[in-house]
Amino acid sequence: MLSSVSKTLIGGIRGFGVMAAARGLVFRQLFEPVSCTYTYLLADPDSKEAVLIDPVLETANRDAKLVKDLGLKMVYAANTHCHADHITGTGVLKKLLPGCRSVISKDSGALADIHIQEGDVIKFGKYSLEARSTPGHTDGCLTYVLSDQSMAFTGDALLIRGCGRTDFQQGCPSTLYNSVHSKIFTLPDNCYLYPAHDYTGQTVTTVDEEKRLNPRLTKSEAEFVKIMNNLNLPRPKQIDIAVPANLVCGVQEK
Amino acid sequence: MLSSVSKTLIGGIRGFGVMAAARGLVFRQLFEPVSCTYTYLLADPDSKEAVLIDPVLETANRDAKLVKDLGLKMVYAANTHCHADHITGTGVLKKLLPGCRSVISKDSGALADIHIQEGDVIKFGKYSLEARSTPGHTDGCLTYVLSDQSMAFTGDALLIRGCGRTDFQQGCPSTLYNSVHSKIFTLPDNCYLYPAHDYTGQTVTTVDEEKRLNPRLTKSEAEFVKIMNNLNLPRPKQIDIAVPANLVCGVQEK
Repeated sequence: MLSSVSKTLIGGIRGFGVMAAARGLVFRQLFEPVSCTYTYLLADPDSKEAVLIDPVLETANRDAKLVKDLGLKMVYAANTHCHADHITGTGVLKKLLPGCRSVISKDSGALADIHIQEGDVIKFGKYSLEARSTPGHTDGCLTYVLSDQSMAFTGDALLIRGCGRTDFQQGCPSTLYNSVHSKIFTLPDNCYLYPAHDYTGQTVTTVDEEKRLNPRLTKSEAEFVKIMNNLNLPRPKQIDIAVPANLVCGVQEK
Repeated sequence: MLSSVSKTLIGGIRGFGVMAAARGLVFRQLFEPVSCTYTYLLADPDSKEAVLIDPVLETANRDAKLVKDLGLKMVYAANTHCHADHITGTGVLKKLLPGCRSVISKDSGALADIHIQEGDVIKFGKYSLEARSTPGHTDGCLTYVLSDQSMAFTGDALLIRGCGRTDFQQGCPSTLYNSVHSKIFTLPDNCYLYPAHDYTGQTVTTVDEEKRLNPRLTKSEAEFVKIMNNLNLPRPKQIDIAVPANLVCGVQEK
Protein backbone atom coordinates (compact mmCIF):
# COMPACT_ATOMS: atom_id res chain seq x y z
CA MET A 1 0.00 0.00 0.00
CA LEU A 2 2.85 2.37 0.84
CA SER A 3 4.65 2.75 -2.45
CA SER A 4 7.86 3.82 -0.83
CA VAL A 5 8.14 0.87 1.52
CA SER A 6 11.66 -0.45 1.53
CA LYS A 7 13.42 -2.62 4.03
CA THR A 8 16.83 -1.91 2.58
CA LEU A 9 16.94 1.88 2.48
CA ILE A 10 18.10 2.24 6.05
CA GLY A 11 21.65 1.18 6.28
CA GLY A 12 25.04 2.15 7.62
CA ILE A 13 24.56 5.91 7.57
CA ARG A 14 25.36 7.20 11.05
CA GLY A 15 24.50 10.64 12.36
CA PHE A 16 27.73 11.20 14.26
CA GLY A 17 28.45 14.89 14.24
CA VAL A 18 26.03 15.60 11.45
CA MET A 19 22.56 16.75 12.31
CA ALA A 20 19.92 16.25 9.68
CA ALA A 21 19.02 19.92 10.07
CA ALA A 22 22.47 20.81 8.83
CA ARG A 23 21.54 19.26 5.53
CA GLY A 24 18.38 21.33 5.23
CA LEU A 25 15.69 19.26 6.94
CA VAL A 26 12.77 21.43 8.04
CA PHE A 27 12.04 20.38 11.60
CA ARG A 28 9.60 21.74 14.15
CA GLN A 29 8.64 20.48 17.58
CA LEU A 30 5.12 21.52 18.61
CA PHE A 31 3.42 21.19 21.99
CA GLU A 32 -0.17 20.56 23.10
CA PRO A 33 -0.39 21.60 26.75
CA VAL A 34 -3.47 19.69 28.02
CA SER A 35 -2.09 16.22 27.28
CA CYS A 36 1.54 17.47 27.20
CA THR A 37 1.91 15.92 23.74
CA TYR A 38 4.69 16.74 21.28
CA THR A 39 3.84 16.81 17.60
CA TYR A 40 6.69 16.84 15.09
CA LEU A 41 6.78 18.40 11.65
CA LEU A 42 9.50 17.20 9.28
CA ALA A 43 9.86 18.33 5.68
CA ASP A 44 12.14 18.46 2.70
CA PRO A 45 12.63 22.13 1.76
CA ASP A 46 13.21 21.20 -1.87
CA SER A 47 10.31 18.86 -2.68
CA LYS A 48 8.19 20.50 0.07
CA GLU A 49 6.93 17.04 1.11
CA ALA A 50 6.18 16.94 4.82
CA VAL A 51 5.24 14.49 7.57
CA LEU A 52 3.52 15.16 10.90
CA ILE A 53 4.15 12.72 13.74
CA ASP A 54 1.52 12.44 16.49
CA PRO A 55 -0.71 15.41 15.71
CA VAL A 56 -3.39 16.27 18.29
CA LEU A 57 -7.04 17.12 17.54
CA GLU A 58 -7.00 20.38 19.55
CA THR A 59 -3.93 21.74 17.71
CA ALA A 60 -4.72 20.45 14.21
CA ASN A 61 -5.62 23.94 12.96
CA ARG A 62 -2.36 25.38 14.28
CA ASP A 63 -0.40 22.59 12.59
CA ALA A 64 -2.26 22.95 9.28
CA LYS A 65 -1.65 26.72 9.31
CA LEU A 66 2.07 26.22 9.90
CA VAL A 67 2.26 23.69 7.04
CA LYS A 68 0.56 26.18 4.71
CA ASP A 69 2.65 29.15 5.95
CA LEU A 70 5.83 27.23 5.21
CA GLY A 71 4.56 26.28 1.75
CA LEU A 72 4.75 22.57 2.52
CA LYS A 73 2.76 19.66 1.10
CA MET A 74 1.67 17.25 3.82
CA VAL A 75 2.01 13.70 2.54
CA TYR A 76 1.66 11.69 5.77
CA ALA A 77 0.21 12.17 9.25
CA ALA A 78 1.76 9.30 11.20
CA ASN A 79 0.98 8.14 14.71
CA THR A 80 3.49 6.29 16.85
CA HIS A 81 0.59 4.31 18.39
CA CYS A 82 -3.08 4.37 19.34
CA HIS A 83 -2.99 7.04 22.06
CA ALA A 84 -5.07 6.79 25.24
CA ASP A 85 -4.61 10.35 26.52
CA HIS A 86 -5.66 12.50 23.56
CA ILE A 87 -7.51 12.24 20.28
CA THR A 88 -5.27 12.23 17.24
CA GLY A 89 -5.43 15.20 14.85
CA THR A 90 -4.98 12.87 11.88
CA GLY A 91 -8.59 12.72 10.74
CA VAL A 92 -9.04 16.50 10.85
CA LEU A 93 -5.69 17.12 9.15
CA LYS A 94 -6.72 14.92 6.23
CA LYS A 95 -9.61 17.31 5.68
CA LEU A 96 -7.56 20.47 6.23
CA LEU A 97 -4.67 19.30 4.05
CA PRO A 98 -6.03 17.28 1.11
CA GLY A 99 -3.58 14.66 -0.10
CA CYS A 100 -2.40 13.85 3.40
CA ARG A 101 -2.64 10.14 4.22
CA SER A 102 -2.81 8.65 7.69
CA VAL A 103 -0.22 6.12 8.82
CA ILE A 104 -0.17 3.81 11.84
CA SER A 105 1.18 0.37 12.64
CA LYS A 106 -0.71 -2.71 11.51
CA ASP A 107 -0.44 -4.04 15.07
CA SER A 108 -2.29 -1.02 16.51
CA GLY A 109 -5.60 -2.38 15.26
CA ALA A 110 -6.55 1.17 14.23
CA LEU A 111 -7.92 2.29 10.89
CA ALA A 112 -5.60 4.32 8.66
CA ASP A 113 -4.84 4.83 4.99
CA ILE A 114 -1.53 3.07 5.37
CA HIS A 115 -0.52 0.32 7.78
CA ILE A 116 3.16 -0.20 8.40
CA GLN A 117 5.35 -2.49 10.45
CA GLU A 118 8.97 -3.14 11.46
CA GLY A 119 11.41 -2.09 8.77
CA ASP A 120 8.94 -0.15 6.62
CA VAL A 121 10.01 3.30 5.51
CA ILE A 122 8.05 6.55 5.17
CA LYS A 123 9.58 8.77 2.50
CA PHE A 124 9.16 12.54 2.19
CA GLY A 125 11.32 14.09 -0.50
CA LYS A 126 14.94 13.06 -0.02
CA TYR A 127 14.35 12.09 3.61
CA SER A 128 12.85 9.00 5.14
CA LEU A 129 11.76 7.57 8.46
CA GLU A 130 12.30 3.91 9.32
CA ALA A 131 9.63 2.27 11.46
CA ARG A 132 10.94 0.18 14.34
CA SER A 133 8.50 -1.95 16.26
CA THR A 134 8.82 -1.00 19.95
CA PRO A 135 5.85 -2.65 21.71
CA GLY A 136 5.30 -2.75 25.46
CA HIS A 137 3.28 0.42 26.09
CA THR A 138 0.87 -0.90 23.45
CA ASP A 139 1.29 -3.76 20.98
CA GLY A 140 1.40 -1.40 18.03
CA CYS A 141 3.99 1.13 19.23
CA LEU A 142 6.45 2.28 16.59
CA THR A 143 9.61 4.35 16.88
CA TYR A 144 10.34 6.40 13.76
CA VAL A 145 14.07 6.77 13.01
CA LEU A 146 15.38 9.36 10.54
CA SER A 147 17.48 7.60 7.91
CA ASP A 148 20.81 9.07 9.07
CA GLN A 149 19.95 7.99 12.63
CA SER A 150 20.49 11.53 13.92
CA MET A 151 16.98 11.65 15.42
CA ALA A 152 14.27 9.21 16.46
CA PHE A 153 10.66 9.71 17.53
CA THR A 154 9.98 7.28 20.32
CA GLY A 155 6.29 7.83 21.03
CA ASP A 156 5.54 6.54 24.53
CA ALA A 157 8.12 3.73 24.43
CA LEU A 158 10.82 6.00 25.81
CA LEU A 159 10.24 9.35 27.50
CA ILE A 160 12.91 11.75 28.83
CA ARG A 161 14.13 10.00 32.00
CA GLY A 162 11.00 7.85 31.86
CA CYS A 163 8.83 5.60 29.70
CA GLY A 164 5.19 5.00 28.86
CA ARG A 165 3.05 3.11 31.36
CA THR A 166 2.34 -0.57 30.84
CA ASP A 167 -0.85 -1.09 32.84
CA PHE A 168 -3.56 -0.79 30.18
CA GLN A 169 -4.25 -1.55 26.52
CA GLN A 170 -1.68 -4.28 25.75
CA GLY A 171 0.94 -3.00 28.18
CA CYS A 172 3.73 -5.36 29.19
CA PRO A 173 6.83 -4.19 31.07
CA SER A 174 9.10 -7.03 29.89
CA THR A 175 8.18 -6.35 26.30
CA LEU A 176 8.80 -2.61 26.73
CA TYR A 177 12.17 -3.19 28.39
CA ASN A 178 13.33 -5.37 25.52
CA SER A 179 11.97 -2.97 22.89
CA VAL A 180 13.90 -0.03 24.30
CA HIS A 181 17.12 -1.97 24.80
CA SER A 182 17.09 -3.68 21.40
CA LYS A 183 15.59 -1.00 19.16
CA ILE A 184 16.37 2.40 20.74
CA PHE A 185 19.48 1.98 22.89
CA THR A 186 21.20 0.40 19.85
CA LEU A 187 20.98 3.71 17.97
CA PRO A 188 24.10 5.96 17.97
CA ASP A 189 24.83 7.50 21.36
CA ASN A 190 24.37 11.03 20.01
CA CYS A 191 21.05 10.26 18.30
CA TYR A 192 18.46 12.78 19.51
CA LEU A 193 15.37 11.14 20.97
CA TYR A 194 12.09 13.03 20.70
CA PRO A 195 9.27 11.61 22.84
CA ALA A 196 5.50 11.92 22.40
CA HIS A 197 5.19 13.58 25.81
CA ASP A 198 7.06 15.44 28.47
CA TYR A 199 5.54 16.66 31.70
CA THR A 200 8.55 18.66 32.99
CA GLY A 201 9.19 21.14 30.18
CA GLN A 202 12.07 19.20 28.64
CA THR A 203 12.09 18.80 24.87
CA VAL A 204 14.71 16.27 23.83
CA THR A 205 17.23 13.72 25.08
CA THR A 206 19.87 11.47 23.53
CA VAL A 207 20.54 7.73 23.48
CA ASP A 208 23.65 8.32 25.60
CA GLU A 209 21.72 10.24 28.24
CA GLU A 210 18.96 7.67 28.60
CA LYS A 211 21.41 4.76 28.69
CA ARG A 212 23.16 6.50 31.60
CA LEU A 213 20.40 8.43 33.35
CA ASN A 214 16.98 6.87 32.77
CA PRO A 215 15.90 5.94 36.31
CA ARG A 216 13.89 2.92 35.12
CA LEU A 217 15.59 1.60 32.02
CA THR A 218 19.10 1.56 33.48
CA LYS A 219 17.84 -1.10 35.92
CA SER A 220 17.76 -4.86 35.28
CA GLU A 221 14.71 -6.23 33.50
CA ALA A 222 13.42 -7.77 36.74
CA GLU A 223 13.76 -4.48 38.61
CA PHE A 224 12.13 -2.61 35.74
CA VAL A 225 9.14 -4.98 35.76
CA LYS A 226 8.76 -4.47 39.51
CA ILE A 227 8.87 -0.68 39.16
CA MET A 228 6.32 -0.66 36.34
CA ASN A 229 3.95 -3.02 38.16
CA ASN A 230 3.91 -0.74 41.20
CA LEU A 231 3.37 2.71 39.69
CA ASN A 232 -0.29 2.83 40.77
CA LEU A 233 -1.13 5.57 38.29
CA PRO A 234 -4.64 6.97 37.89
CA ARG A 235 -6.59 5.92 34.83
CA PRO A 236 -6.04 8.40 31.92
CA LYS A 237 -8.87 10.93 31.97
CA GLN A 238 -9.57 10.76 28.24
CA ILE A 239 -9.06 7.01 27.69
CA ASP A 240 -12.73 6.12 27.15
CA ILE A 241 -13.07 8.83 24.53
CA ALA A 242 -9.57 8.80 23.05
CA VAL A 243 -9.01 5.10 22.34
CA PRO A 244 -12.26 4.49 20.42
CA ALA A 245 -11.70 7.73 18.46
CA ASN A 246 -8.10 6.88 17.70
CA LEU A 247 -9.06 3.39 16.52
CA VAL A 248 -10.87 5.16 13.68
CA CYS A 249 -8.13 7.74 13.00
CA GLY A 250 -9.73 10.40 15.20
CA VAL A 251 -12.70 10.90 12.87
CA GLN A 252 -15.50 10.07 15.20
CA GLU A 253 -19.18 10.85 14.83
CA LYS A 254 -20.26 13.91 16.79
CA MET B 1 34.20 43.17 34.01
CA LEU B 2 33.51 40.41 31.49
CA SER B 3 36.98 39.23 30.59
CA SER B 4 35.86 37.77 27.30
CA VAL B 5 34.22 40.94 26.01
CA SER B 6 35.19 41.53 22.42
CA LYS B 7 33.55 43.63 19.80
CA THR B 8 35.51 42.08 16.98
CA LEU B 9 34.91 38.37 17.52
CA ILE B 10 31.63 38.33 15.65
CA GLY B 11 32.31 38.69 12.01
CA GLY B 12 31.53 37.33 8.62
CA ILE B 13 30.75 33.78 9.64
CA ARG B 14 27.31 32.95 8.29
CA GLY B 15 25.21 29.97 9.34
CA PHE B 16 23.89 29.10 5.88
CA GLY B 17 23.38 25.39 5.78
CA VAL B 18 25.46 24.76 8.86
CA MET B 19 23.70 24.47 12.17
CA ALA B 20 25.77 25.08 15.26
CA ALA B 21 24.52 21.76 16.59
CA ALA B 22 26.22 20.03 13.70
CA ARG B 23 29.51 21.22 15.09
CA GLY B 24 28.82 19.75 18.50
CA LEU B 25 27.02 22.51 20.41
CA VAL B 26 24.96 21.12 23.27
CA PHE B 27 21.60 22.83 23.01
CA ARG B 28 18.39 22.35 25.01
CA GLN B 29 15.15 24.28 24.95
CA LEU B 30 13.27 24.10 28.26
CA PHE B 31 9.74 25.26 29.07
CA GLU B 32 8.09 26.73 32.16
CA PRO B 33 4.33 26.32 31.70
CA VAL B 34 2.86 28.95 34.07
CA SER B 35 4.50 31.95 32.40
CA CYS B 36 5.07 30.02 29.10
CA THR B 37 8.77 30.92 29.30
CA TYR B 38 11.51 29.23 27.32
CA THR B 39 14.88 28.77 28.99
CA TYR B 40 17.85 27.80 26.83
CA LEU B 41 20.89 25.75 27.76
CA LEU B 42 23.93 26.04 25.50
CA ALA B 43 27.25 24.34 26.16
CA ASP B 44 30.55 23.32 24.65
CA PRO B 45 30.83 19.50 24.95
CA ASP B 46 34.64 19.74 25.09
CA SER B 47 35.28 22.44 27.71
CA LYS B 48 31.90 21.69 29.38
CA GLU B 49 31.31 25.42 29.82
CA ALA B 50 27.61 26.24 29.69
CA VAL B 51 25.25 29.21 29.58
CA LEU B 52 21.59 29.40 30.56
CA ILE B 53 19.45 32.08 28.94
CA ASP B 54 16.33 33.27 30.80
CA PRO B 55 16.07 30.69 33.59
CA VAL B 56 12.89 30.77 35.71
CA LEU B 57 12.72 30.53 39.50
CA GLU B 58 10.18 27.66 39.49
CA THR B 59 12.30 25.48 37.20
CA ALA B 60 15.76 26.34 38.55
CA ASN B 61 16.11 22.94 40.24
CA ARG B 62 15.23 21.12 37.01
CA ASP B 63 17.76 23.19 35.10
CA ALA B 64 20.51 22.69 37.69
CA LYS B 65 19.88 18.93 37.67
CA LEU B 66 20.15 18.79 33.88
CA VAL B 67 23.40 20.77 33.97
CA LYS B 68 24.84 18.33 36.51
CA ASP B 69 23.49 15.25 34.68
CA LEU B 70 25.21 16.39 31.49
CA GLY B 71 28.46 17.02 33.36
CA LEU B 72 28.47 20.71 32.44
CA LYS B 73 29.99 23.69 34.23
CA MET B 74 27.63 26.65 34.28
CA VAL B 75 29.58 29.83 33.71
CA TYR B 76 26.79 32.34 33.01
CA ALA B 77 23.08 32.68 33.68
CA ALA B 78 22.06 35.45 31.31
CA ASN B 79 18.75 37.28 31.06
CA THR B 80 17.54 38.92 27.89
CA HIS B 81 15.87 41.62 30.01
CA CYS B 82 14.22 42.41 33.33
CA HIS B 83 11.11 40.23 33.04
CA ALA B 84 7.69 41.36 34.27
CA ASP B 85 5.87 38.02 34.09
CA HIS B 86 8.09 35.67 36.10
CA ILE B 87 10.93 35.77 38.60
CA THR B 88 14.30 34.89 37.13
CA GLY B 89 16.00 31.69 38.30
CA THR B 90 19.39 33.40 38.16
CA GLY B 91 19.79 34.05 41.88
CA VAL B 92 18.88 30.49 42.87
CA LEU B 93 21.05 28.99 40.14
CA LYS B 94 24.09 30.88 41.45
CA LYS B 95 23.58 29.03 44.73
CA LEU B 96 22.85 25.65 43.10
CA LEU B 97 25.75 25.90 40.64
CA PRO B 98 28.67 27.67 42.32
CA GLY B 99 30.84 29.54 39.83
CA CYS B 100 27.87 30.65 37.77
CA ARG B 101 27.73 34.42 37.27
CA SER B 102 24.64 36.44 36.41
CA VAL B 103 24.55 38.57 33.26
CA ILE B 104 22.11 41.26 32.17
CA SER B 105 22.26 44.47 30.17
CA LYS B 106 23.55 47.63 31.77
CA ASP B 107 20.44 49.43 30.49
CA SER B 108 18.12 47.06 32.40
CA GLY B 109 18.90 48.83 35.66
CA ALA B 110 19.04 45.41 37.36
CA LEU B 111 21.77 44.09 39.62
CA ALA B 112 23.98 41.32 38.20
CA ASP B 113 27.56 40.12 38.39
CA ILE B 114 28.20 41.26 34.85
CA HIS B 115 26.59 44.10 32.91
CA ILE B 116 26.84 44.00 29.14
CA GLN B 117 25.75 46.11 26.21
CA GLU B 118 25.61 46.21 22.40
CA GLY B 119 28.47 44.30 20.85
CA ASP B 120 29.69 42.57 23.99
CA VAL B 121 30.31 38.84 23.75
CA ILE B 122 29.62 36.02 26.20
CA LYS B 123 32.09 33.18 25.69
CA PHE B 124 31.57 29.56 26.74
CA GLY B 125 34.28 27.21 25.52
CA LYS B 126 34.74 27.60 21.77
CA TYR B 127 31.31 29.21 21.35
CA SER B 128 30.14 32.73 21.97
CA LEU B 129 27.00 34.83 22.04
CA GLU B 130 27.00 38.40 20.78
CA ALA B 131 24.70 40.82 22.59
CA ARG B 132 22.61 43.04 20.36
CA SER B 133 20.67 45.86 21.94
CA THR B 134 17.01 45.45 20.94
CA PRO B 135 15.04 47.88 23.14
CA GLY B 136 11.35 48.66 22.79
CA HIS B 137 9.74 46.06 25.08
CA THR B 138 12.06 47.40 27.79
CA ASP B 139 15.06 49.73 27.53
CA GLY B 140 17.46 46.94 28.44
CA CYS B 141 16.33 44.18 26.06
CA LEU B 142 19.15 42.21 24.48
CA THR B 143 19.10 39.63 21.69
CA TYR B 144 21.86 37.03 22.01
CA VAL B 145 23.25 35.85 18.66
CA LEU B 146 25.38 32.71 18.36
CA SER B 147 28.66 33.61 16.67
CA ASP B 148 27.93 31.73 13.43
CA GLN B 149 24.53 33.49 13.30
CA SER B 150 22.74 30.15 13.01
CA MET B 151 20.58 30.93 16.05
CA ALA B 152 19.51 33.97 18.06
CA PHE B 153 17.65 34.34 21.35
CA THR B 154 15.31 37.26 20.99
CA GLY B 155 13.78 37.51 24.47
CA ASP B 156 10.52 39.46 24.19
CA ALA B 157 11.67 41.68 21.31
CA LEU B 158 10.44 39.17 18.76
CA LEU B 159 8.06 36.29 19.43
CA ILE B 160 6.85 33.66 16.93
CA ARG B 161 4.39 35.62 14.75
CA GLY B 162 4.31 38.28 17.48
CA CYS B 163 6.38 40.53 19.70
CA GLY B 164 6.58 41.68 23.29
CA ARG B 165 4.12 44.31 24.49
CA THR B 166 5.17 47.95 24.73
CA ASP B 167 2.72 49.35 27.26
CA PHE B 168 4.70 49.17 30.53
CA GLN B 169 8.21 49.47 31.91
CA GLN B 170 9.99 51.50 29.21
CA GLY B 171 7.94 50.13 26.32
CA CYS B 172 7.94 52.06 23.05
CA PRO B 173 6.53 50.61 19.82
CA SER B 174 8.65 52.76 17.47
CA THR B 175 11.81 51.73 19.29
CA LEU B 176 10.82 48.05 19.16
CA TYR B 177 9.99 48.24 15.45
CA ASN B 178 13.40 49.68 14.66
CA SER B 179 15.19 47.22 16.94
CA VAL B 180 13.67 44.21 15.21
CA HIS B 181 14.18 45.56 11.71
CA SER B 182 17.79 46.71 12.24
CA LYS B 183 19.12 44.03 14.61
CA ILE B 184 17.10 40.83 14.03
CA PHE B 185 15.73 40.98 10.48
CA THR B 186 19.29 41.73 9.28
CA LEU B 187 20.44 38.26 10.42
CA PRO B 188 20.61 35.49 7.76
CA ASP B 189 17.20 34.38 6.51
CA ASN B 190 17.75 30.84 7.81
CA CYS B 191 18.87 31.95 11.28
CA TYR B 192 16.72 30.17 13.87
CA LEU B 193 15.01 32.59 16.26
CA TYR B 194 14.26 31.33 19.76
CA PRO B 195 11.91 33.58 21.78
CA ALA B 196 11.53 33.93 25.53
CA HIS B 197 7.88 32.89 25.31
CA ASP B 198 5.33 31.14 23.21
CA TYR B 199 1.69 30.74 24.11
CA THR B 200 0.67 28.43 21.24
CA GLY B 201 3.02 25.46 21.63
CA GLN B 202 5.45 26.57 18.93
CA THR B 203 9.15 26.38 19.69
CA VAL B 204 11.15 28.18 17.02
CA THR B 205 10.94 30.35 13.93
CA THR B 206 13.38 31.80 11.39
CA VAL B 207 14.27 35.29 10.20
CA ASP B 208 12.75 34.46 6.81
CA GLU B 209 9.46 33.36 8.35
CA GLU B 210 9.06 36.43 10.54
CA LYS B 211 10.00 38.80 7.72
CA ARG B 212 7.23 37.22 5.64
CA LEU B 213 4.62 36.15 8.18
CA ASN B 214 4.80 38.24 11.36
CA PRO B 215 1.36 39.88 11.45
CA ARG B 216 2.68 43.01 13.19
CA LEU B 217 6.26 43.49 12.06
CA THR B 218 5.56 43.10 8.34
CA LYS B 219 3.48 46.28 8.59
CA SER B 220 4.79 49.84 8.25
CA GLU B 221 6.16 51.48 11.38
CA ALA B 222 3.08 53.71 11.64
CA GLU B 223 0.71 50.74 11.38
CA PHE B 224 2.79 48.79 13.90
CA VAL B 225 2.64 51.67 16.41
CA LYS B 226 -1.13 51.84 16.00
CA ILE B 227 -1.50 48.08 16.54
CA MET B 228 0.70 48.11 19.65
CA ASN B 229 -1.08 51.13 21.14
CA ASN B 230 -4.44 49.39 20.84
CA LEU B 231 -3.76 45.92 22.25
CA ASN B 232 -5.54 46.69 25.53
CA LEU B 233 -3.86 43.79 27.31
CA PRO B 234 -4.42 43.04 31.00
CA ARG B 235 -1.66 43.98 33.42
CA PRO B 236 0.77 41.02 33.92
CA LYS B 237 -0.32 39.12 37.03
CA GLN B 238 3.15 38.84 38.53
CA ILE B 239 4.51 42.28 37.59
CA ASP B 240 4.47 43.79 41.11
CA ILE B 241 6.40 40.81 42.45
CA ALA B 242 8.51 39.94 39.42
CA VAL B 243 10.01 43.30 38.46
CA PRO B 244 11.33 44.22 41.94
CA ALA B 245 12.69 40.68 42.35
CA ASN B 246 14.32 40.70 38.92
CA LEU B 247 15.92 44.09 39.59
CA VAL B 248 17.94 42.29 42.28
CA CYS B 249 18.68 39.17 40.18
CA GLY B 250 15.74 37.23 41.62
CA VAL B 251 17.33 36.93 45.04
CA GLN B 252 14.71 38.63 47.10
CA GLU B 253 14.24 38.55 50.85
CA LYS B 254 11.57 36.10 51.97
